[in-house]
Amino acid sequence: MRLPLLMDLYELTMAAAYHRCGMEEKTAVFDLSYPTNPFGWGCAIFAGLEPALEHLESLRFGQEELDYLASIALFDEAFLGWLGSMRFTGSVVSVPEGEVIAAGEPLLSVRGPFAEVQIVETALLNIINYQTLVATKAARIVRAAGGKPVVEFGARRAPGPDGAMSATRAAFIGGARVTSHLGGGKAFGIPVAGTQAHSFVTAFDSELAAFRAYADTYPDDCVLLVDTYDTLGSGVPNAITVAAELKRSGHALAGIRLDSGDTASLSAQARRMLDAAGLQQVRIFASDELDEVAIVAIRDAGGAVDAWGVGTRLVTAAGAHGGALGGVYKLVELDGKPRIKLSAKKSTIPGGKSLFRVSGAGGQAMMDVIALESERPKAGDVVCELATGVSTTIPEGARVEPLRQEVMIAGRRTREAPALASCADRALGSLSRFAPEILDLRHPAQYPVLLSAALHALREKMKDRHAETGT
Amino acid sequence: MRLPLLMDLYELTMAAAYHRCGMEEKTAVFDLSYPTNPFGWGCAIFAGLEPALEHLESLRFGQEELDYLASIALFDEAFLGWLGSMRFTGSVVSVPEGEVIAAGEPLLSVRGPFAEVQIVETALLNIINYQTLVATKAARIVRAAGGKPVVEFGARRAPGPDGAMSATRAAFIGGARVTSHLGGGKAFGIPVAGTQAHSFVTAFDSELAAFRAYADTYPDDCVLLVDTYDTLGSGVPNAITVAAELKRSGHALAGIRLDSGDTASLSAQARRMLDAAGLQQVRIFASDELDEVAIVAIRDAGGAVDAWGVGTRLVTAAGAHGGALGGVYKLVELDGKPRIKLSAKKSTIPGGKSLFRVSGAGGQAMMDVIALESERPKAGDVVCELATGVSTTIPEGARVEPLRQEVMIAGRRTREAPALASCADRALGSLSRFAPEILDLRHPAQYPVLLSAALHALREKMKDRHAETGT
Repeated sequence: MRLPLLMDLYELTMAAAYHRCGMEEKTAVFDLSYPTNPFGWGCAIFAGLEPALEHLESLRFGQEELDYLASIALFDEAFLGWLGSMRFTGSVVSVPEGEVIAAGEPLLSVRGPFAEVQIVETALLNIINYQTLVATKAARIVRAAGGKPVVEFGARRAPGPDGAMSATRAAFIGGARVTSHLGGGKAFGIPVAGTQAHSFVTAFDSELAAFRAYADTYPDDCVLLVDTYDTLGSGVPNAITVAAELKRSGHALAGIRLDSGDTASLSAQARRMLDAAGLQQVRIFASDELDEVAIVAIRDAGGAVDAWGVGTRLVTAAGAHGGALGGVYKLVELDGKPRIKLSAKKSTIPGGKSLFRVSGAGGQAMMDVIALESERPKAGDVVCELATGVSTTIPEGARVEPLRQEVMIAGRRTREAPALASCADRALGSLSRFAPEILDLRHPAQYPVLLSAALHALREKMKDRHAETGT
Repeated sequence: MRLPLLMDLYELTMAAAYHRCGMEEKTAVFDLSYPTNPFGWGCAIFAGLEPALEHLESLRFGQEELDYLASIALFDEAFLGWLGSMRFTGSVVSVPEGEVIAAGEPLLSVRGPFAEVQIVETALLNIINYQTLVATKAARIVRAAGGKPVVEFGARRAPGPDGAMSATRAAFIGGARVTSHLGGGKAFGIPVAGTQAHSFVTAFDSELAAFRAYADTYPDDCVLLVDTYDTLGSGVPNAITVAAELKRSGHALAGIRLDSGDTASLSAQARRMLDAAGLQQVRIFASDELDEVAIVAIRDAGGAVDAWGVGTRLVTAAGAHGGALGGVYKLVELDGKPRIKLSAKKSTIPGGKSLFRVSGAGGQAMMDVIALESERPKAGDVVCELATGVSTTIPEGARVEPLRQEVMIAGRRTREAPALASCADRALGSLSRFAPEILDLRHPAQYPVLLSAALHALREKMKDRHAETGT
């Protein structure tokens, strides 16, 4: 899918003004970051990089787009000519997909001719904002599930057809390793799963007839939806009947699904009924407006759930501080000179940068450090808190490693796209190195992000200069 | 964009079971409805129909999809053969796009061969859920803006590339008649607008130099972003300087944009400064995490805003009872016999249906009535409340008109796709016939939806039958 016009008009009006001023080829650096960790968590999971790089690599404006832009009557022929022959030739340094990240970090930095790197703002934000948000929500849900599988069920509530694709991809990176969505399953090689809908059960003259028809078609992959009429009164008993019939013919019922009512109590009672019938191996799936909060509540209340189907609240990233990541893309350097924006309470961090993770002897993540591009922070260095400027030091004995890699040079990716499973594995591995306090689902501590002393000094100097001159 | 696999696996496992049971050709009717009006409003705006119909019309499974489905190892060759030659041949009766709708109504009914109408569930819900939600949010925001233009700015926070397209389309139907998103502007013929970003301002050696460069490029379409450094201390004064320069060269500054801080107070002060400089015609645009709640608050606090740019909270449908519409697609009739689902608190409404709007003499919408397909309700008829069954009558002298039309017969649309502007006009006109109490943004009354006495009786009879037999 080629969507060159996934951009806001102002990107082109700005680029045209740069072009008119002869500034379009000046080398600029933009940082992509977000201001607050979503869902009030202590960190987040980075996702969406590869589709974003694909967009950059394939970006070009055909005659159709140029004709449309000419019709807006804002652009002169010289600029439209530039646009027609434009290819993205910038470079990108980025955190890898699946990595744990935190608010304020430059997740990716884009360097290249000013007009080129300006006009990709909306596309990069669009792709990365949503996928990072969903991957993070998925990671929280997977954590709540405590080792039981999480199946992504969200296609019907995802925002549009491509929203469903993005959601399935990002949820997988965050740890939902199975999906009900065939489009995502096919595109990304994700295992697919599914049972039946209430419409199937109501299509037959009785619930038992419906269960038998399904079991007959899928004797070894049969999960029965037991809440169409009366979960404990008819659904579970009918499932037990069919399980016995399957057993007699050498098969085994795979599971039942609960999709309404008090999941904690219903699952516990269904478990007892199944066990009493000698059906210990039959698994109980739960769905119905689940997310990390609901799953924790059901587990705390003694629910007996073996797998969780999560849809709406995953793909809409529902919950406090959810809904949107709020990522921004800010100019930090132009023509070798650092740039700053001061408005409201927040100022940007000027200058080209590098980003490091500081780990303890056991590999545990301790803090991330944002530094000048030329710096290589090490144990013992002074670093300053992002918000307050209060200084501390990188602990002695700590390992300091770069968190970002150069993933695109001169408009071409530097490596094959990593397999999606390796991104999901990275998320799992990276999360295992974060302290439980950071990952607490209710009252997490914020993972610390600090500035090198030199970067902090640059920022303060630029703030002061603007304050003095009044710009 | 062809996405035949925008479906959940269970739709195909069910269809394959129908196929195995010889039920795939039985005529089925599914209703699409949603349980609760979004954002706690008294009604909603229907959107997404035309893309949904396009999906149905173009649905087919090519060799690539069939090979993928074969790899899942759940489907036999006979079913895959059926799928390979399958075309959607069903009929659709629907509310027109842009119409005001309410919770519980069958917005569209799909009738056709059981397996065909079953497998389009996820696609229909995916497309209609999101667009209806965004159109409704837009209508609320436009109402809050009280006649001032609302510009959709959400592409960067929309859920994925196609999410941005869906959002722009739906927001337009809901009343945001301008967008910053070029892809949506081109695809749907929506006027586009945009100013500049902070990166533009920080790219120059001073704010004034940036403003001059922009004004020089767009002397008649120049809106200046005034909050990069100090809104009232430098931004507005510099804009006034540039406005004076433009005036001397025979042009006029179009506006300024505020994107941070206390919008109410800043806009009022900026207005006074502009007016004092004789710049009464310069408009003030506001953006920054706006939605209907924020806009009402800014207006109540004396803000002087001439146009509103709304992004994140519009395209993510943020707010209480937002995020997802919760639409469902339920089997209501099979082989001429009504079907019902009873689980949890909610039972479906069985049977093929019709839907009517009851209006007073002045055209004001009074209630909607869901009836049996064969019925034609009229003034004086008894109707029953959806939730309680309490009966009332259709007022004497009221007009009763069908709210739905047949939009697809045998898999082909019955008419040209309506122009998007006519859908937006329909929303505007329809909303004007709804009482202010229904449209109140904070404490609305719920628009009444009732069942005909005959449909109510059918539903109760089917509930009782299931209760007696225990299915």
